[in-house]
Formats: sequence, structure tokens, C-alpha cells
Amino acid sequence: MTAQTLALTGTAFHTPERGRLEVLEEHLFCVDAQGRIDAVLPPNHPQYGARKEAARQAGALVELSDGQFLLPGLVDLHIHAPQWPQMGKALDVPLEVWLQKYTFPLEARYVDVGYAREVYADLVDNLLANGTTTALYFATVHVEASLALAEICLEKGQRALVGKVVMDDPEQCPPFYRDADAILAVSDTRRFIEAVRALDGGERPLVLPVITPRFIPSCTDEALSGLGELARDYGCHVQTHCAESDWAKAFVEQRFGRTDAASLDGFGLLTRHTILAHSNFIDGEDMDLIERQGAGVAHCPLSNFYFANAVFPLREALDRHMHVGLGTDISGGYSPSLFDGCRHALSASRTLQSGVHAGLPAHERGASGEPITHLEAFWLATAGGAEALDLPTGSFRVGHDFDALLIDTRASASNVHVGKAEDTLEDVFQKIVLNAARANIAKVWVRGRTVVGR
Amino acid sequence: MTAQTLALTGTAFHTPERGRLEVLEEHLFCVDAQGRIDAVLPPNHPQYGARKEAARQAGALVELSDGQFLLPGLVDLHIHAPQWPQMGKALDVPLEVWLQKYTFPLEARYVDVGYAREVYADLVDNLLANGTTTALYFATVHVEASLALAEICLEKGQRALVGKVVMDDPEQCPPFYRDADAILAVSDTRRFIEAVRALDGGERPLVLPVITPRFIPSCTDEALSGLGELARDYGCHVQTHCAESDWAKAFVEQRFGRTDAASLDGFGLLTRHTILAHSNFIDGEDMDLIERQGAGVAHCPLSNFYFANAVFPLREALDRHMHVGLGTDISGGYSPSLFDGCRHALSASRTLQSGVHAGLPAHERGASGEPITHLEAFWLATAGGAEALDLPTGSFRVGHDFDALLIDTRASASNVHVGKAEDTLEDVFQKIVLNAARANIAKVWVRGRTVVGR
Repeated sequence: MTAQTLALTGTAFHTPERGRLEVLEEHLFCVDAQGRIDAVLPPNHPQYGARKEAARQAGALVELSDGQFLLPGLVDLHIHAPQWPQMGKALDVPLEVWLQKYTFPLEARYVDVGYAREVYADLVDNLLANGTTTALYFATVHVEASLALAEICLEKGQRALVGKVVMDDPEQCPPFYRDADAILAVSDTRRFIEAVRALDGGERPLVLPVITPRFIPSCTDEALSGLGELARDYGCHVQTHCAESDWAKAFVEQRFGRTDAASLDGFGLLTRHTILAHSNFIDGEDMDLIERQGAGVAHCPLSNFYFANAVFPLREALDRHMHVGLGTDISGGYSPSLFDGCRHALSASRTLQSGVHAGLPAHERGASGEPITHLEAFWLATAGGAEALDLPTGSFRVGHDFDALLIDTRASASNVHVGKAEDTLEDVFQKIVLNAARANIAKVWVRGRTVVGR
Repeated sequence: MTAQTLALTGTAFHTPERGRLEVLEEHLFCVDAQGRIDAVLPPNHPQYGARKEAARQAGALVELSDGQFLLPGLVDLHIHAPQWPQMGKALDVPLEVWLQKYTFPLEARYVDVGYAREVYADLVDNLLANGTTTALYFATVHVEASLALAEICLEKGQRALVGKVVMDDPEQCPPFYRDADAILAVSDTRRFIEAVRALDGGERPLVLPVITPRFIPSCTDEALSGLGELARDYGCHVQTHCAESDWAKAFVEQRFGRTDAASLDGFGLLTRHTILAHSNFIDGEDMDLIERQGAGVAHCPLSNFYFANAVFPLREALDRHMHVGLGTDISGGYSPSLFDGCRHALSASRTLQSGVHAGLPAHERGASGEPITHLEAFWLATAGGAEALDLPTGSFRVGHDFDALLIDTRASASNVHVGKAEDTLEDVFQKIVLNAARANIAKVWVRGRTVVGR
């Protein structure tokens, strides 16, 4: 047995498989010196007492009190780190204004690494406080600022996948904010990958580099080919936006004569470690292709409402066994909380399956298939996202890293109200998924390290 | 000038008319001994200095600090008080199960006034902490428990409109939870109205009785006629559910040969002081009728997602100048927060106007008309709801009651992040509407009385 650095007693909820809630009532959770869960013991387990006592003696025991529960850490599959300062604003303007007046000028500011450090430190603190223990970040085109984000995540202890953004097509990108050319875009990405790997070079790096073409329309063929080669050479993660809007879908199909997903695959950018943001307008063939390659989708329901004019066909994707998780899509989405993400995913799914237009006859209103449940939503925000990334987090399996939240339903400012006599533990879980807020997150661990709370 | 019992300096936001934000930057807000706003003065007003100083001398001055802002109190136009214990649970079961297994048995428990007092005290505390300064409540069929809710609101200082529910049709209501017959349902309602009026008998009662047929399907013709007569005799508020679902719409049309709204009007239940919850399936003629009678709609976007299979046609209703506000519809809606209500109204409106099905061509996807803005959403939650109720709250007009929230963007657990250099006050307002949580509400006043915070 390795040294016990942390052990916890209490009730945990997790969804190790989609749609299945497992309640680990009054269990003992043991974490080894590497931050891995090395035992999950029910109270009647023969080793329960001895291991608990050993942890207590070592000063390593955390005992949850009444009204407190453990959840796995939340996984954000799509977030634009540089857009943090404009989270919750400019959502009342058209997309073109949002990009040209707000977003591109803001992202261009990250040429200043000092500014980047200040914003990114605030961002990571706030995401951790919201329970996001793993984040897949779009940074900006700037290598140094993107590296600063990776350093800050490492320092603060957030599991992070960080991408230096590539956008080199002068036809589509503003002169003040783009890669100088395709060759530089690719060589900068290579430099970035190597720098991040040098930063966190152990066997189990907490921070990983990501190849990040913004989306096909902003990249030249040369850049896309070069990035595809990097993906093959380095085997690292890839992320991009896919088929987010009618415009993006049509643009790619006109340029390449095939869909966004198929085009990415042609460039070698659709791999087991690829996450496609949005993908609202993918068809059945795209889904099969994505599933076959083992790639995943970052579903961003809140930003769908604002920017997509459609909602990702989640039920169909799940039925085809695609990897799917949730993204906040800050600042196209205004909330940093993946609890909110779960709720918006539930709303989006319900509007899609049940319909919205009262003027239509009931049978013409919705799509086929059942809306997702709160169990599926929470799975998306945890184990689903972790599986899409192929990382050992998202549930309390032995061997996974201990990435966890301590939820305090009795916190001041709590809107989670538990009736001791009336609510089953399953009810409590539903109440947490539907009403937990940042104020309920008393403590956060990533790989066994306390990153929020005392 | 009446005695100054409260004065505040700081920046306030309100939307006195739909779609218009007014920023009252560093103004002085003076509240008289009756809790009414008697002056709103800009810093350059000749009386500003003297009145501020007078308030300071009287120990009645509250000075907002950096990062703090005033908002009008929030108005919840539809909430089922007895369903508070099941907020956030049982939303994964079909409607029939939700009603028969959960909701009706729970509501039946309020025959026990002790239980009612315990739950209602907790409810009112929590709603006030979420910034709901005015609530239009469905209670239960029980006169005593409903009266207890009215008493608790009065004691805790929440502006409240409380209805003893009428549901007397044995064909539609469970034997363990209904009025014994129509005559008793009406006489109990009369007794309830008089008791509430006796409770708070001043010129400006804070708590008001409401005539509350649950919805047409649960009431006999005799009960509906009798309640219509009470509405005429007492001139008090009326509330009911209207055209919430395909089933409810079809049921009423089959029973009376006309729509839900027209049927209510036939019974004398559609008045200037009527609030119709939901109304998702009303048509243009219904809207004109409702507008003509001066009645209003409680739009409950979150519960629409779960229970309606459609979304209220909000833009069309606003274009026709109907009174509309927002309801949380606890526990058909899982959130007690009208900030959440604003956000869900934005989402609902966007799904309706932009569409959700990616499989349809873009031009077939949405309804005509623009989605609502965050300014309109906030108006619905404040001035819109107040106008629908015909009550002097919802904005900082002189003569209105001072019902207000102190929002602290720097609270711990705040997800509202203001950039001093980068954000205009309009941006700050948008960030508050989109991300304010209970943790941001530092203080709440109703009619000048501090009901939350020190």
C-alpha cells in the first residue's frame, strides 16, 4: 500500500456509465500519494475501519458532515479562455458585431503576456471555484500567452488541455489578429506543443497541449494539412469548431465538396483525441464517421441558443455511442458553471424532443427520441467528458485520479433544500444537479490536491 | 417632507418601460416612513447634499460601495407554495406520476397547519433571499394553511398575493385532496378573502387574497360561477392555469366549445386583476381578449420546457401589449430564482424565434419576430410583473414602494465579474442579469423594511 495522503468518509454520487447513478453511501475513499483513488470501501468492508483509522492517525482524514456530499469534478470540453473578461456581455448583438467589435479585438490583446497572466489567473481560480477540475481551452494565436495559461493551470492545479489557436486565412481573419502565414502557424503550434510538454513532462502530465485550428473557415489548406501532420507526429489532442451554424456548414461544403467532419478527417484532424465543439449540423454519416474515429463532441447548449439557430442532436449522437461531453463555451455561453451546463442541456434536449411551437399540431412539434435525463446530463459533465478526452477522471473508479467536489447543501446561499424525512438519496442528487451553485462548492480537489477551500 | 427613514446613495439599474434600461448613476434614493420612494436625485440636484446629510444625521443613510448596485425587487407571478419541499425533484417522471404520486399527496399534507407553518416559513425566507419581494402564490385547498402563508408573508415582510386553491370536481381531483363540493369551495374562498383582508386591513395592504380555481378541468361549473361572483363582489385578484398543455386546451374546448381564456371570461374570471399562468396555447383572439380585459400572463419558461411541449408565444403577446411577467412555477420549475427565470425566458424565446431542429432548412426553423433581450427579460421579472398585478413596485419611480435588492458583484461565490476599465454600466447590468446568483444578493428591502441582510 502506498502512503495515504488523503482519505474521506461520506456519501458520494457519480454516474460511471451514462444514465446510471451510483450512490456510494457512507463509503471510505482512499487516495494515494500520486492522487489516485486506490480504494473505495463500503462501511461493512473488512478494511474500512483500519484504513480509516490509519488515515486519521496520519492527519489525512476528511469526514463529511450531515448535508455534505462528494461529486466527481466537472469537465468543461469547450471554453475560450481569453473571452473571460466579456463573459455575460455583448450577447444582445449580432454574431458579426460580436466577433469584430468585441471578440477579435479582445483576443488580440493577449499579445501582451502580462495581461494574459492577469486574466488567466482570475479565470482558473473562478473555474476551480465552480467545480471545473478539467478544462479543454482555446487560448489565442499567441504562443507565449497560451503557454502562460498552461503554466497557470499547472501552478493552480487544474487539469487542463490548452490550445494555441491557428487562424491564418487573411480572407476570413482580421489583419490585427491572425497567424502571419500557414508555415508560421504550424511551426508555432509545434513550438507550443513542445513547450507544454517540457513544462509538465512526467508520466502523467496534468497539463496537455492541443492542436487547435479555430475552424475550417479561418484556416488555409496548408495550415490544416500541417496541423494534421502534427497530430500524427505528436499524437496529442485536437480541437476545433465543427458545423456550428448554417453558415459554417455551407462554407465548408462549398469549399471542399464534403461536410465539415469529413473535411477534418481528410486533413488527419479527426482522431481518438479530437473534440469537435458544437457539431449542431452534422448528419448521420458524420456521426458514424466521428464514432468510428473515436472523436468526441463538446455539446454547448447555452451557446446553441444564442449563436446556432439550432440545437445539437444529442439523443441521436448518444444512440450512436459517440463520445459527448459538455462545454460552457465562454463567452458564447455566459455561465462558467457546468451545473448550469447540465440544466441548459436538459432544456435544449427538451425543446428538441418536445418542440416549442404551440401553433403546430403536437405530433409535428418535436423530434423522435426521449429527452435526456438529469443522470445523463451529469454524466455528460463528468464521465462522458472524461471518456471523450481519454483521461482518468470523471468518476470515483479505483485507479482514476481523485478529482472531486465537496457539495455542502447547508451552505449559506444554498438553493438545494434537502428534506431529511422526505428525500431519498436519489432525490438529493437530482436536487443538487438542478440547483447547486458555486456557493454550494465548499472544497475542490484535483488529483488529490486541495485546490479550493481549506 | 415626511420623516426620512431610509436613504441610499449608489448606482441603480431599472427598466421602467419594456426594453429601456435606465442607469441611475450615483443617485440618492429617499424612502419615506411609509416605505415609499419620495425622491430620486442625481448628484447635481440642488437638494442632493442636504437630503443626504439629513439622512446621515438620522442614522438612516446606506452608502453603496464599489461593485455594489441597486435593482428593483423581483416579482414572481406564479409559484405553488406547498410544492417547496419537492423543488428540484421528480422532474424525470411523467406528468401523471408527478401529480398523483408526488404533488397531490404533498399538497394534501397541508391539512396539518403545523406542517404548513414550518414549510412556508422556510419558503418565504428563501424566496426573499433570492430577491423575490413580491409573490403570487397558489397555496392549497385548506383555508387555515393558506391563511398561515399570508400571515407568514406579512410577518416576514414579503409582498404577497395568496390564493386558497379551488378544485372540486370529483372526476378530476383525487378523493384525498379536493374541496368537498362547489358550495363549500366558494364559501371557503369567501372566508379566506375576508380573513386575509382582516389580517392586513390598512389602506395599502402588503398581503392580498386571490381567487384561485386550480384550472378549469379541476372545477365544476358551479364552482367557477361562484368564484366569478366573488371576483365581481370583492374586486380582488384572480389566478388560474390557462391553456398550459395540449391536453388542457383540448379538454376545455371540448367541455365549453370555446377556448380556455374565453371560458374564464364567460365565468367573470378574466379581469384587470387576473393572472393566467402559462397560456402557451392561446391564440390571437385569446390574446386580444386578455389584453382588452387588462388581464396578464405569468410566463413560466422553465416549466414550459418540462411540462408544456411548447413555449409561450411571448413576442406575439408583447407585440399585442398584453400584461406579462415571469413565474418560477415551483416545483414544475426547479429554480426559486427569478434571475434564472430571466435566463430561461431568454433561452425559450431564442428557441422559439430561431428554432431548434438542425434538420429543417433555416427559413422553416423559427417563428417570426425577434427573440427578447436581457432588458425585456428583466422588465418581465420586475416592472412587467408589477404592472400585471397593478401594484406600485418593480421600478424606482417616485411614489412606488421601495422594494429593492443590493447586488454585490464582489461577494465571495460571485460569478459576476466586472472589469472596471472594460465594462460600461450597461455591460455590468447585462452581466448581473446573466450571472447574478443568490450569493450576490447582500440585502433586500420590501416597502423600505430590511427583510434580508443587516
